[in-house]
Amino acid sequence: MHKINEDLQKERDKCSFNIQDLITLIDGGPEKTRERKDRENVMLSKREVFDGVPEEYLSHKERYENAIRNSVVAFSLVRKMQEEGKTSINNYRDVVGGLLGSSVLRDGSPLGLHYIMFMPAILNQGNEEQQEKWLPRAWNCSIIGSYAQTELGHGTFIRGLETTATYDAATKQFVLHSPTLTAYKWWPGGLGQTANYCIVVAQLYTKGQCHGIHSFIIQVRDEETHMPLPGIKIGEIGAKLGLNAVNNGFLGFDNFRIPRTNMLMKHAQVLEDGTYVKSRHSKLNYGAMVFVRVVIVFDMVNYLSKAVTIATRFSAVRRQCQLKAGETECQILDYVTQQHKLFVSIAAAHAFRITANNLWLTFNEVNEQLSEGNLQRLPELHALACCLKAVTTADTAACVERCRLACGGHGYMMSSSLPLTYGLVTAACTYEGENTVLLLQTARFLVKTYQQLDSKALTPTVAYFKSAAAEKFCDSWTNTTEGIIRGLQVVAMRKIAHCVIVMTNRVSKGMTFEDAWNMTSVQLVAAAEAHCRVIIMSTFLEEVKEMSRTISPKLKEVLHQLAELYCIYWALEKLSDLLLYTPISQKEVESLRLWYEETLTKLRPNAVGLVDAFDLRDEMLQSTLGSYDGRVYERLMEEAMKSPLNAEPEVESLRLWYEETLTKLRPNAVGLVDAFDLRDEMLQSTLGSYDGRVYERLMEEAMKSPLNAEPVNHTFHKYLKPFMQGKL
Amino acid sequence: MHKINEDLQKERDKCSFNIQDLITLIDGGPEKTRERKDRENVMLSKREVFDGVPEEYLSHKERYENAIRNSVVAFSLVRKMQEEGKTSINNYRDVVGGLLGSSVLRDGSPLGLHYIMFMPAILNQGNEEQQEKWLPRAWNCSIIGSYAQTELGHGTFIRGLETTATYDAATKQFVLHSPTLTAYKWWPGGLGQTANYCIVVAQLYTKGQCHGIHSFIIQVRDEETHMPLPGIKIGEIGAKLGLNAVNNGFLGFDNFRIPRTNMLMKHAQVLEDGTYVKSRHSKLNYGAMVFVRVVIVFDMVNYLSKAVTIATRFSAVRRQCQLKAGETECQILDYVTQQHKLFVSIAAAHAFRITANNLWLTFNEVNEQLSEGNLQRLPELHALACCLKAVTTADTAACVERCRLACGGHGYMMSSSLPLTYGLVTAACTYEGENTVLLLQTARFLVKTYQQLDSKALTPTVAYFKSAAAEKFCDSWTNTTEGIIRGLQVVAMRKIAHCVIVMTNRVSKGMTFEDAWNMTSVQLVAAAEAHCRVIIMSTFLEEVKEMSRTISPKLKEVLHQLAELYCIYWALEKLSDLLLYTPISQKEVESLRLWYEETLTKLRPNAVGLVDAFDLRDEMLQSTLGSYDGRVYERLMEEAMKSPLNAEPEVESLRLWYEETLTKLRPNAVGLVDAFDLRDEMLQSTLGSYDGRVYERLMEEAMKSPLNAEPVNHTFHKYLKPFMQGKL
Repeated sequence: MHKINEDLQKERDKCSFNIQDLITLIDGGPEKTRERKDRENVMLSKREVFDGVPEEYLSHKERYENAIRNSVVAFSLVRKMQEEGKTSINNYRDVVGGLLGSSVLRDGSPLGLHYIMFMPAILNQGNEEQQEKWLPRAWNCSIIGSYAQTELGHGTFIRGLETTATYDAATKQFVLHSPTLTAYKWWPGGLGQTANYCIVVAQLYTKGQCHGIHSFIIQVRDEETHMPLPGIKIGEIGAKLGLNAVNNGFLGFDNFRIPRTNMLMKHAQVLEDGTYVKSRHSKLNYGAMVFVRVVIVFDMVNYLSKAVTIATRFSAVRRQCQLKAGETECQILDYVTQQHKLFVSIAAAHAFRITANNLWLTFNEVNEQLSEGNLQRLPELHALACCLKAVTTADTAACVERCRLACGGHGYMMSSSLPLTYGLVTAACTYEGENTVLLLQTARFLVKTYQQLDSKALTPTVAYFKSAAAEKFCDSWTNTTEGIIRGLQVVAMRKIAHCVIVMTNRVSKGMTFEDAWNMTSVQLVAAAEAHCRVIIMSTFLEEVKEMSRTISPKLKEVLHQLAELYCIYWALEKLSDLLLYTPISQKEVESLRLWYEETLTKLRPNAVGLVDAFDLRDEMLQSTLGSYDGRVYERLMEEAMKSPLNAEPEVESLRLWYEETLTKLRPNAVGLVDAFDLRDEMLQSTLGSYDGRVYERLMEEAMKSPLNAEPVNHTFHKYLKPFMQGKL
Repeated sequence: MHKINEDLQKERDKCSFNIQDLITLIDGGPEKTRERKDRENVMLSKREVFDGVPEEYLSHKERYENAIRNSVVAFSLVRKMQEEGKTSINNYRDVVGGLLGSSVLRDGSPLGLHYIMFMPAILNQGNEEQQEKWLPRAWNCSIIGSYAQTELGHGTFIRGLETTATYDAATKQFVLHSPTLTAYKWWPGGLGQTANYCIVVAQLYTKGQCHGIHSFIIQVRDEETHMPLPGIKIGEIGAKLGLNAVNNGFLGFDNFRIPRTNMLMKHAQVLEDGTYVKSRHSKLNYGAMVFVRVVIVFDMVNYLSKAVTIATRFSAVRRQCQLKAGETECQILDYVTQQHKLFVSIAAAHAFRITANNLWLTFNEVNEQLSEGNLQRLPELHALACCLKAVTTADTAACVERCRLACGGHGYMMSSSLPLTYGLVTAACTYEGENTVLLLQTARFLVKTYQQLDSKALTPTVAYFKSAAAEKFCDSWTNTTEGIIRGLQVVAMRKIAHCVIVMTNRVSKGMTFEDAWNMTSVQLVAAAEAHCRVIIMSTFLEEVKEMSRTISPKLKEVLHQLAELYCIYWALEKLSDLLLYTPISQKEVESLRLWYEETLTKLRPNAVGLVDAFDLRDEMLQSTLGSYDGRVYERLMEEAMKSPLNAEPEVESLRLWYEETLTKLRPNAVGLVDAFDLRDEMLQSTLGSYDGRVYERLMEEAMKSPLNAEPVNHTFHKYLKPFMQGKL
């Protein structure tokens, strides 16, 4: 253990609340905290396996091989937990979510989709025999699956998919085919070189008729040799902004045949003679989409907590410029512009977590009703999941990037972990429903709701439409968070109402409804966003009020400050809406600004305590700037020394000098141990290992050699296959 | 040449103006267009040298070696142009700027700083003897330099730099020293393994007194062996979000001695006996800072044009969803939300270019006055350069990212070129003055100006303060761009005024001025931004009006539409300011929104023509999504096939299939040539070369082998040294 940076220690000393209390609250109780820590301990027990030359110095291919190695180790542990009954398909969210983006699987995993999409698809869309046949093999990873829907030319518009699955009654087989280049599947995680099975979404043809898209389970590689099966054209799609460990693949079919029973038939079926039996409920698949979106919101909470922990700790350690001439340089956390950049992210992490928990509960309720055939609440749930996914991913991307920029140049270093985090988060703005498209889906629901305002009972998330229509603003309504939320409810309702008026006008002037919708779509997106912010903010506030009854007064105070900050921040961000649609005065606006600035000041002394409460271990953060002990500059230099460019012999002298510098800086035992730590890392990449891990290192090096290029990527035989056979 | 995508061809056919006219206008005349094209032809004449496995598949070290190879080829051509009198230090901006971020030097260059900072520093800060001694060697690259100011612990606050240069009169030497870890220089481009000289900024001590920071020219590596000199601790700082070809380095000194004459002495001097002679004008160095910021704004124009060209062409090729049921899927460029995401970037590229040209002229004027000792206009120029750098980099980063997200998943592919572009642009938000810090500098100038409003004549960029104070809004003022700008001038002035009031209040309640400034800094930043937007918008509008007298009516029309779009866009973005500080009504806001939507519709048919007019050759764009011919999907697949993961023997069968698919898709000769193209790329990385470039490829492969690790990175001996000796 290193000595804690003095500035950071002072921050912790002045924290007004008990950090452990907040940790427990965030986890959802002491039991949950214990479970999480247990999981982390298990995962990090194999930590030394994951150390080595930092990913960013490796080639694309080496990164893939690394990812396979790390994934196999990590998911062996998951399998072990599974066998010991410590996890089930119901808390994969925690387990897999905790792994991805952590130090263990920093840039995603080729096995992620196996857990997140492949198994759930069989569970949700397969009939009983199919579940019995495939799930046990998938559970113990003796097959590895992916999920292929998107095509090179088709994403959002699922009905436009080109891949066909044509039933041949003579052989009782489906013939899968990719008629064009744009029909190639494109993006599925793990599909490139990793998976041997895949759920494929294709247009179903039988008896000469197209019945739209259905799912099929398809073997793509030989289970023994891992060679692609004849008729399968498969490979990886290449380098991306992030997620480069995911091995996203493409997949084309050349009249590839599968048995009839490989169509997932829980809902619709094709009988042996080719008769198509329709699904009872065409909307049942919405459940899976909603599930994935809930998972994404939880992911965002993880990434946002991570980014703001890094940036806040760094801002307490970093000193730059003088607030007053002649003083020592001040912690950059003391600059109000810096507080403005960071504190809203702390608040947002809480707001999103609370809203996601809420969405998760609603999802489970509605899912139960669905299984009973009750579809009533599905449209609302769908609209809610759409906008929450869109707003939380967009906000998180913006917040993470703001945190990164708030760390100045050092935030641009890969070793800060912030660029990687942004890469993971910004991807979520696009996958599983592009954000603009999703907000327009929510807008469609809101417009419909508004048009039926008088004739229909309103579902919970839009109940405010009626109260907002009747809102009478009292004096000083802007002085409370409740008032602000009522104001923003009026805004959301009025924005929808305004869109309806604009569209009606356009239609009355001869436009088609579709063109009027398109012309008004920029405003519709803004209206859906406004609605979503109302939901997040009011859920956050209500929950904080609810919590207040059981938590310490000190903790209550700081949580209230966070909720206030979040409300005022967004009121000021969306000020033009308040000015347009509520009777807010210029004076009230000025008071809001002062209130905002004062809340920043109140939160300042607790900033480090608040991010400590996210309880992200250094091994999860993996950041030179964000570690618990605040050894920012030392870590930056240590990481720089790991660059292979610095490992040439000429650097020998540099290394000695560096050690001298370290020795001077740390005239105590801890400092000396530091210096030895460094030496091991540096030697590893050129001079060979002195730490006794000779054979492991020899093997790792051997694995990188082009001489070992095997007909099939060797990682399959070394790692994947034994893993799949349960020998690991 | 491939056939042009049909949709793209249709777009070009319907373009209402002559694209060549706009190209000429952008370049600044037919002569300039010719010069630019000549330069491009020279640079791209060596294009085949730059082809190979895409950068994103290489390891960090291989990328560096690639960067050295490409830089040496590119800058040899620059040197040749130099010798032929086709370029001078005055248009390095065009030459070096055109190279960086292009296909030639995609992710920066280790030699960039040599041209952009090292030589200008000697020119601006060296006395005549020093210029005579160093410049010719730098000009012909027999020495390679970098520029080291920022330290591990010190960036913004230059006065806080820790590196010391202590004069020793006995030996007539300066002793350079890094007393702590945080004193290490950190970031200088090319300093890691490339440069052998460096300008170093350090605290000057002589006769026991500190005289603040001064610049020194320091040899860091042996000119012959390239080994670091004794006392020099040097290396690279590691992987970053972007700019990974730049070889950013660190540098520490252990009592390293240099001759007295290596202090750059144009301004201040240290005499032989150690007497310090003060600089005549302490502010003279501002000139260099302003220069670099002007260069950055031009860079932003390049990157923004590039990103929006890619996204717009892709949006014309990509079809997704039906606007009306039953229709064919429509071009995504037809969605108004997509137009909203893209068109403002086209307008911004023009607005920034025009403003940068203007700033460049002002800079040259003021620089001339400076050399005559007239410093009067320096504060205004400094304030202007600060806010323009901040706003254009932040806007460009946001616009590039919006363009990338507007391309959906495909924008996440490295092969789209958009992630790399974002990496380059977002770095500019931090380097050469962090954006928040710069805006606060502008705010300080604006506050001072406002406080002296009655007593002083106003300089040009703030002249509007007085007219704004007297502004009487007529009816329907929001119906014209001139009206909007007047509105935004009132906004900027009132925001500054409001900050002054808030600060005065705070001081009157007992706060120090510094604390009041800090508490108000979020609002001060917003005020400076508002001022900057007024400058950009009014410069853009005036220039378009000015141009209108000489250009065709069709071109005039579309440029006016762009200027309108830009004004309305920002009026709507900053609507809360207009609502607070001007008498804009709800009805007028609604009209603005309609005007915005209508302007998007007017621009829609010219979108592709407008980005064509940026005249960025495919070789400069290097994007699968943005090429002139629109072969988006084919290129995506071709690039995917270049991934080393797809080059394993198992893919042999895939390759044959892929060629079959291509053959089916392109039943003509051109298609067949495509297919052969692909084969070469694929073979290259595993099976060896069939195209006859056997020896080149053998050498390239040899260069990658760890067996060739030399005491000094071998690229020095192979490329850098011959280049520096003028043999290349």
